[in-house]
Amino acid sequence: MSLAVGVDLGGSTLRAALVDAQGDIVRAVRRPLGERSPEAVVDQLALLLGELAPPPGAPMAVGLAGSIRSHGGVVALAPNLGWRELPFGALLAARFGGARLVNDLGAITVGEAERGAGRGARDVVCVFVGTGVGMGAVVGGALLEGHGGLAAELGHAKVVEPEQGRLCGCGERGCLEAYVGGRHLPALLGEQLAAGVASDRFRADDPVLASVDAAVLEEAAAAGDPAALAVWRRAAELLGRALGTVIAVLSPRGLVLGGGVLRRAPHLRALVGERLQANGPRPQLAELVIRDSELGDDAGLVGAGLLAHRERR
Amino acid sequence: MSLAVGVDLGGSTLRAALVDAQGDIVRAVRRPLGERSPEAVVDQLALLLGELAPPPGAPMAVGLAGSIRSHGGVVALAPNLGWRELPFGALLAARFGGARLVNDLGAITVGEAERGAGRGARDVVCVFVGTGVGMGAVVGGALLEGHGGLAAELGHAKVVEPEQGRLCGCGERGCLEAYVGGRHLPALLGEQLAAGVASDRFRADDPVLASVDAAVLEEAAAAGDPAALAVWRRAAELLGRALGTVIAVLSPRGLVLGGGVLRRAPHLRALVGERLQANGPRPQLAELVIRDSELGDDAGLVGAGLLAHRERR
Repeated sequence: MSLAVGVDLGGSTLRAALVDAQGDIVRAVRRPLGERSPEAVVDQLALLLGELAPPPGAPMAVGLAGSIRSHGGVVALAPNLGWRELPFGALLAARFGGARLVNDLGAITVGEAERGAGRGARDVVCVFVGTGVGMGAVVGGALLEGHGGLAAELGHAKVVEPEQGRLCGCGERGCLEAYVGGRHLPALLGEQLAAGVASDRFRADDPVLASVDAAVLEEAAAAGDPAALAVWRRAAELLGRALGTVIAVLSPRGLVLGGGVLRRAPHLRALVGERLQANGPRPQLAELVIRDSELGDDAGLVGAGLLAHRERR
Repeated sequence: MSLAVGVDLGGSTLRAALVDAQGDIVRAVRRPLGERSPEAVVDQLALLLGELAPPPGAPMAVGLAGSIRSHGGVVALAPNLGWRELPFGALLAARFGGARLVNDLGAITVGEAERGAGRGARDVVCVFVGTGVGMGAVVGGALLEGHGGLAAELGHAKVVEPEQGRLCGCGERGCLEAYVGGRHLPALLGEQLAAGVASDRFRADDPVLASVDAAVLEEAAAAGDPAALAVWRRAAELLGRALGTVIAVLSPRGLVLGGGVLRRAPHLRALVGERLQANGPRPQLAELVIRDSELGDDAGLVGAGLLAHRERR
């Protein structure tokens, strides 16, 4: 049986799995991520691989949250790890004889497209809304990379005129992520309250506002709180329109939605579905199957493992 | 020398060329398009091919303006020809032994990507603004088709909330094309005048308004006419933002702009460039080369010929 190693280098956990050529996980291991310097991460990965015990010469792919120049193995930017323009691929090659680097959403997309909610389709788009907004796409059966590996950055597509837009974590204004991403929810709610939208639950000057998350907003929206509903409605309109543009451009067979914010907020998820129907072009929508993600935390491991199989020499 | 036949079935002209494997046109012929029934078009193509005299067995591809279900050879919709859900591929196969059908912008994109303004890049997006808005993309060296061949419909991506959007020729509201396409320019100007924007040249009740085109608007904009400038500014903002989203999603190396409206309106073209810089994500823009189309009417013939070579049995 041919086996590959899929690695998920997350913000707080390092996980690795042996994955067969069909994408089944044969064995998986994990450990909390400690120090985040590149050398320390390589050391921790070596310990984890010792535990996993892959067959000699098994190919490996590593998914991590960040922009990756895919063909050079350089991590252009990984905010969670504090890395910038780091040749992590070369470090992995020196220690383990090489590994493919891939954006975490790219790995998740391959996993969901081949074994999860998008299985059976050759054109699949995956959009996850969590702290930020991540996207991946499989086009004609292959992971979309774009020039230098920078494709599928939907979170930083502009959804309002930038000069009037909200400031995003990337330093630009008007990005989709600044209207939908979990880290922006407290400020988005505060702006609705400041604009005079009524609320039974929240007060603009309440310090607890800073800790509002998707679950709190969802509970308020479910109870009909106008300010919470206003945040969800605007998020759904802008996300639905951006998804509609992606559908117009890529015309995928499958659209897979996931991530912590959408998972914890069924009202938002339903509104996004409605606004996608209103904002998508009908001929492409007619061909589209929309599903929630199915593989959970395994998606990235399965996808990285499948990508590693394809790079096998 | 291996030769293929590229055909451009335009709204008023039928053109065909012998194209070698490098994309050079060896010989080209044309005739005005007469009757547009599918059988009449096949007859006219047969006469044209008689004149072109391709070598026996030369593969053929036909580009035409419309949505094409690429793998079935069915023209889903071709407004210029008045065709809908027409199995044109089967007609071509019966008469000529088969031909690949491709959307005209798909053929143009392959031509420009391989021999024109995008040459040397494996990821190229081509956007033409004429009567409508057309798009094509080459992703990793292959024409982007999407599920069923319906990809790259940027003209029908929604750029404003649909319920408040302008009516597009496709029957939906809020499409990019309704704010940029040449056939909408008279109405767009009329709306600015009706909203009270000043103009030295145009009056809301002047019947000549109905014949305003890109050249007339451009001349007025160049002379500083506020209403003409307002039309161009809104068009540039919405087109620039849509292009920015395409750049975020596909991260191409090359962006090729063309079409009659952009060609005739240098002020609009310059504004679009500015608004793309403001609306695009910086990391992807830094990798992007933006050029005007170079091959003119030959792009579609070259692209169709190259696609035909790739389908050679």
